[in-house]
Amino acid sequence: MLSKNIETFLGCENEYEESKIVIFGAPFDSTTSYRPGTRFASKAMRSESFGIETYSPYQDKDLEDITVFDGGDLELSFGNPEKALTQIEEFTALVLEDDKIPCMIGGEHLVTLGAVRAAAKKYPDLHVIQFDAHADLRDDYLGESLSHASVIHRVWDILGDGRIYQFGIRSGDRSEFQWGKDHVYTNKFNFDGLNEIVEKLKGKPIYLTIDLDVLDPSVFPGTGTPEAGGVSFLELLQAMLDVSELNIIACDVNELSPIYDQSGVSTAVACKVLRELILML
Amino acid sequence: MLSKNIETFLGCENEYEESKIVIFGAPFDSTTSYRPGTRFASKAMRSESFGIETYSPYQDKDLEDITVFDGGDLELSFGNPEKALTQIEEFTALVLEDDKIPCMIGGEHLVTLGAVRAAAKKYPDLHVIQFDAHADLRDDYLGESLSHASVIHRVWDILGDGRIYQFGIRSGDRSEFQWGKDHVYTNKFNFDGLNEIVEKLKGKPIYLTIDLDVLDPSVFPGTGTPEAGGVSFLELLQAMLDVSELNIIACDVNELSPIYDQSGVSTAVACKVLRELILML
Amino acid sequence: MLSKNIETFLGCENEYEESKIVIFGAPFDSTTSYRPGTRFASKAMRSESFGIETYSPYQDKDLEDITVFDGGDLELSFGNPEKALTQIEEFTALVLEDDKIPCMIGGEHLVTLGAVRAAAKKYPDLHVIQFDAHADLRDDYLGESLSHASVIHRVWDILGDGRIYQFGIRSGDRSEFQWGKDHVYTNKFNFDGLNEIVEKLKGKPIYLTIDLDVLDPSVFPGTGTPEAGGVSFLELLQAMLDVSELNIIACDVNELSPIYDQSGVSTAVACKVLRELILML
Amino acid sequence: MLSKNIETFLGCENEYEESKIVIFGAPFDSTTSYRPGTRFASKAMRSESFGIETYSPYQDKDLEDITVFDGGDLELSFGNPEKALTQIEEFTALVLEDDKIPCMIGGEHLVTLGAVRAAAKKYPDLHVIQFDAHADLRDDYLGESLSHASVIHRVWDILGDGRIYQFGIRSGDRSEFQWGKDHVYTNKFNFDGLNEIVEKLKGKPIYLTIDLDVLDPSVFPGTGTPEAGGVSFLELLQAMLDVSELNIIACDVNELSPIYDQSGVSTAVACKVLRELILML
Amino acid sequence: MLSKNIETFLGCENEYEESKIVIFGAPFDSTTSYRPGTRFASKAMRSESFGIETYSPYQDKDLEDITVFDGGDLELSFGNPEKALTQIEEFTALVLEDDKIPCMIGGEHLVTLGAVRAAAKKYPDLHVIQFDAHADLRDDYLGESLSHASVIHRVWDILGDGRIYQFGIRSGDRSEFQWGKDHVYTNKFNFDGLNEIVEKLKGKPIYLTIDLDVLDPSVFPGTGTPEAGGVSFLELLQAMLDVSELNIIACDVNELSPIYDQSGVSTAVACKVLRELILML
Amino acid sequence: MLSKNIETFLGCENEYEESKIVIFGAPFDSTTSYRPGTRFASKAMRSESFGIETYSPYQDKDLEDITVFDGGDLELSFGNPEKALTQIEEFTALVLEDDKIPCMIGGEHLVTLGAVRAAAKKYPDLHVIQFDAHADLRDDYLGESLSHASVIHRVWDILGDGRIYQFGIRSGDRSEFQWGKDHVYTNKFNFDGLNEIVEKLKGKPIYLTIDLDVLDPSVFPGTGTPEAGGVSFLELLQAMLDVSELNIIACDVNELSPIYDQSGVSTAVACKVLRELILML
Repeated sequence: MLSKNIETFLGCENEYEESKIVIFGAPFDSTTSYRPGTRFASKAMRSESFGIETYSPYQDKDLEDITVFDGGDLELSFGNPEKALTQIEEFTALVLEDDKIPCMIGGEHLVTLGAVRAAAKKYPDLHVIQFDAHADLRDDYLGESLSHASVIHRVWDILGDGRIYQFGIRSGDRSEFQWGKDHVYTNKFNFDGLNEIVEKLKGKPIYLTIDLDVLDPSVFPGTGTPEAGGVSFLELLQAMLDVSELNIIACDVNELSPIYDQSGVSTAVACKVLRELILML
Repeated sequence: MLSKNIETFLGCENEYEESKIVIFGAPFDSTTSYRPGTRFASKAMRSESFGIETYSPYQDKDLEDITVFDGGDLELSFGNPEKALTQIEEFTALVLEDDKIPCMIGGEHLVTLGAVRAAAKKYPDLHVIQFDAHADLRDDYLGESLSHASVIHRVWDILGDGRIYQFGIRSGDRSEFQWGKDHVYTNKFNFDGLNEIVEKLKGKPIYLTIDLDVLDPSVFPGTGTPEAGGVSFLELLQAMLDVSELNIIACDVNELSPIYDQSGVSTAVACKVLRELILML
Repeated sequence: MLSKNIETFLGCENEYEESKIVIFGAPFDSTTSYRPGTRFASKAMRSESFGIETYSPYQDKDLEDITVFDGGDLELSFGNPEKALTQIEEFTALVLEDDKIPCMIGGEHLVTLGAVRAAAKKYPDLHVIQFDAHADLRDDYLGESLSHASVIHRVWDILGDGRIYQFGIRSGDRSEFQWGKDHVYTNKFNFDGLNEIVEKLKGKPIYLTIDLDVLDPSVFPGTGTPEAGGVSFLELLQAMLDVSELNIIACDVNELSPIYDQSGVSTAVACKVLRELILML
Repeated sequence: MLSKNIETFLGCENEYEESKIVIFGAPFDSTTSYRPGTRFASKAMRSESFGIETYSPYQDKDLEDITVFDGGDLELSFGNPEKALTQIEEFTALVLEDDKIPCMIGGEHLVTLGAVRAAAKKYPDLHVIQFDAHADLRDDYLGESLSHASVIHRVWDILGDGRIYQFGIRSGDRSEFQWGKDHVYTNKFNFDGLNEIVEKLKGKPIYLTIDLDVLDPSVFPGTGTPEAGGVSFLELLQAMLDVSELNIIACDVNELSPIYDQSGVSTAVACKVLRELILML
Repeated sequence: MLSKNIETFLGCENEYEESKIVIFGAPFDSTTSYRPGTRFASKAMRSESFGIETYSPYQDKDLEDITVFDGGDLELSFGNPEKALTQIEEFTALVLEDDKIPCMIGGEHLVTLGAVRAAAKKYPDLHVIQFDAHADLRDDYLGESLSHASVIHRVWDILGDGRIYQFGIRSGDRSEFQWGKDHVYTNKFNFDGLNEIVEKLKGKPIYLTIDLDVLDPSVFPGTGTPEAGGVSFLELLQAMLDVSELNIIACDVNELSPIYDQSGVSTAVACKVLRELILML
Repeated sequence: MLSKNIETFLGCENEYEESKIVIFGAPFDSTTSYRPGTRFASKAMRSESFGIETYSPYQDKDLEDITVFDGGDLELSFGNPEKALTQIEEFTALVLEDDKIPCMIGGEHLVTLGAVRAAAKKYPDLHVIQFDAHADLRDDYLGESLSHASVIHRVWDILGDGRIYQFGIRSGDRSEFQWGKDHVYTNKFNFDGLNEIVEKLKGKPIYLTIDLDVLDPSVFPGTGTPEAGGVSFLELLQAMLDVSELNIIACDVNELSPIYDQSGVSTAVACKVLRELILML
């Protein structure tokens, strides 16, 4: 009590130097076109993580056995996407330089672009695996090229064809799906085919981005754009365990919007996803 | 901006004359016996429909490719069921006369009676397919014969035996189920047997009424009388696609109560059901 | 109207003397470590039970055919767990003495200890079946031995090894699971193996405790500590029907927290679980 | 605990025969044109009344010192205003015949008409004092003459000119105010002039109807049609004390809609108004 | 019903050409630094305005007697403040050119800048009256010069000293208040001194901007940054009537955030402020 | 970002050694008899304090000009009031020994007892000023002597007659008020007489306890037991400034329950009260 009040995600209380994994928040949602509020996700997850346990009966592992540093939240400018992305890129680069795994908590999905920029610089052969309800492949949204709805198109600008693998996609406009056919791997609705992709990507550096709205809205109502027909928590957990065999060099979870999570179940499930993600890295 | 503000359900912006489908709201809930509020469903669905896309990856169809007119809401008298039903009947008759498909957004389930009255006049051989958690087969409710809980009994008054097919039913009093055995086809809990019924009804004029509480409350909490043990969104979607082979001459979706939908997932799923319904007609 | 206002759980309107089953509320949540509020469960369930029917299409039975007395709520001291447990124990003992089945509505899970104390006195060979998300096997929580998180350990203090059977467990600290291996039967995540246990326990006196958070948070968000990855309503219902072949001499349902149930679906599902439980006894 | 569970408004636990005051609920809201939900007011008030004390420091009186019977709620037909009004009239007449003071909890404001019908039969010289935000003087609403928006016009049909005194009115259409000028006494916005009216009405039989939306929405958000610019709790309390010098032979409080009262402050203030009302009778 | 569904603010159903006043929504909140959501204000106000009357008993005027056009909402780019401001400026200029009074519904307070840009071009002698809880005088916020927190500083960039009059201010950092002393007129906490200012500004072209958070949070909880200690609805209404003697050539109401308005009272009060504002123009 | 994530109340970022004031949370609510949840107050206040400014225009002072240490929350045992009080007493004693002013954030009002125990040991002549809606003078509540409803009686056990001054009291049972007449100074409903008391207590060591429910529920809905008829924010602020002339050696603010504060206005006003309290010490 006589040292300052430190608040971290559950069990992530190590010093930076000793940690293998670095979690941090990117509280940005300025391009959200429908219901904003993901800026509050990282704070809510830290606060509510104490409702779950450090031990996972799924993996039989405990957060207390591994070293994780929680750096708190980046202070990002609202209303200036390019500047926010630069701040994210710089922090991610710092962590990657120290050979640690950055694990970012969004924010809207656009924040992934900042982290991928840094990761692609260090790992030119970077591949991206995306779990998401939305394709996010537009070239622009109402004229803006930096948008949550175009983030994976922007990632493709960096990585090019054959580097992006999408699962769970169940929403997009027709042109997104058409463009996607030529440039990215898209598995609609669920995780079918994931094992083959994992087999194929073994040894490659992987950026894993989990848009939590891949979950069914019954499981995860607290998000800006709920899309019926999603996967269950156990399906997502299994998919995460499947990709854990790969060389994940950075990752993020995003699109929790606590404002729309009156019962708290969405924040609780986001915390559990993050716990399992950290434990599997 | 210099023309008046028009608000329609997503992508339903055609003129009446050019449209094949006519959607309209019937904001009535005066006989609701438990938790009222379905009067706000059509407004909420119009407003929130912009959170989903016009394109359906399930059907590979787009609302922009078909012609739909949104006539707004009927102005119905609260506290006077007979008068409200007459207003619904008259409007539905108008649409049917013009050889368009009326697609009504309830309101409580009683509104179906108004539309069925009109449809049965035009199509004496009308059959009704009902997706619902509740049998709605009482002869009266607290002495009222016009009630959400007796609406299908009233429909039977018009159509008689062998014309009504219920699926997903998981609530009712004992006498409803007993009476139903002699007069309607009831498949409890799920959509088992739907394919046989579809086969049997091919060519007949069909009124399809979807009480959204057929969905599990986890998927669709925003309704007056949530009943655990319902179907998933994908099960409902498949059932809808199954009946789409039939000659659906009118339809409705009902019992969304936005008041109880704090996270917005119920309205979002209702919008998606309506999108898929319109696309399959 | 000229007699006082009596409020009971749906259809449980018999006099004490004529009843086989006695339901009562134990509105206590003082040791809840995360989000309190289960003290309001029994009141909410009585009030909202009128949104469901007395007839169960699952069991084809009706609450009106059996005799149940609703004794209302015990008046328990907040902040004094030992005293509250004694009050619960005394009332349960009274009901058991009269050869009726006590069916308690929690409250936090600790209330089970009071009822088990009474049941174990009358039935020395008592066995406990627990449906729960949490192991509840800690020896203490922050130094307190009487805690919702240690209630089954306290039950074990009374019954000893081989008497406790847990299903659905998906949360606990590592030491709980380790201790549990030597002292209780634990089936993680679901109801696998329940039929074998039922076979084995035939004829034994059984106390059945249902912590409703065994349900997935999508089905049952209104609880203090939601844990993703739970069972569905139909899975829980089937498990209940499976154990209904046993000699259940007392039971409880607990951990509904209406504060976190803004849409009311959790209270509705709790009412349905209680209806099915009463009908199967 | 071995007698059935009785739930009354706080401290109103006397038998009918021994009581001077009879409270009862009229859970009806079928003509509500905007946001329904007042049907739940009486249940919520009984349940939440235990959050306040029986003792009033304002009047230095205690509910335990007087005799009040709580008859529970009338079972009213939804969707049939005339029938519901008849049920209310009959019960009110019964209470009046026994020389007790009926004190009704609405429900929408239309319920007042049922009680006034009974009161005017017993007391031909009946006068009505109305505290309300809305004039409620329309002749009909969307063609319905029995409506919450026309209830005081209907009361005037019975009583005629010079018998109705409105205070706090701040909403109505222009024609209501114009019609009102010739037929009722209306003091807009506040309670100015109440003392003169009290002086004038001394000795007359008075029906006091308190539409709780006379309170400012900051104090009482939980109502169907909140109107900014209302009175404070202490202003309402003073006005009630002012009229307590009159011969109040029946009264009601109405228009609490617990659905819109997420924090519970509206139900709490309604309970306090009812406590003070009972104590002053 | 056979023409498309038109939705306007209550009673604002005139054509553009015939109207004296033009209302439109500016649904932008990308620079909001704390709780976003004002983008939904104009839609919510149109939808909920039907809960109030067209007639004002305060002014004895009726919306049906004047001509108002509701142009709906501008479609603004999220995440690009400069572009959004340009869109607002262009539309406002169009309305001003036609000698109509633009009346904008925000959005965050930054939207005022777009409208002031247009107004200052037409009226070089423009003066601004601001009712607000926050000074909004920062030069930048986290480095961004276009921010809701710096909007009045940006307005000063255009108008210069002696043109801006603030009332109700009760929040800001110290430097804002210090800078303000030299450049704008600031009356803290309430409307003291407003009459003198009105006297002084007679005949000048006035832009009136009402940040609704000038109201006390008890009256208006539904806003991003509630500040205790604000004015009452009646105080705001009186202040509005006071300035109505001036030559108001454009105005706005802003900062309603319906997400935080669970009971709906904030939207209702915003509607009433807008009704009174339109009636007084 | 490379040091651990520190979260303090707005602007309270000094080290312990250099600070004059020490704030800390006492998240305990086990004896709350009605609606629990105050355990979450201190966390919510830290998190939401960033919605207000460090500068107070009321006092023209800034949190950045003074030294305050935020020690985070005590880890208190739920369900064991005596142990929790001991923990609070020990921490408070530590702070007092270092000649700093402890400023505790409750929790239910019982936590005051722990701090007063420590303060009375150091300052035998301690006097207590209490701003509160409730008298809290019961000798016990349902048999428990350690209860939020008896906390001031317990304080009297330590301090004796003539040492306790209550303001704003508007709820209690009759016996509390009667007992209080002989033992404490009670001013009902408001702050009348505060100036005389301040004059009388000059020079004495004062413990100031602010139960935030002294505020009207319109201003402060987020509390367990809202009591209509309370004071406004500005009245409370003035009362605080009045007592700031005294020698306040310790203080607390308590009874914020964020669960019931859906709009966030209660937490915001609590933050502002705490800011003003710290600035005036």
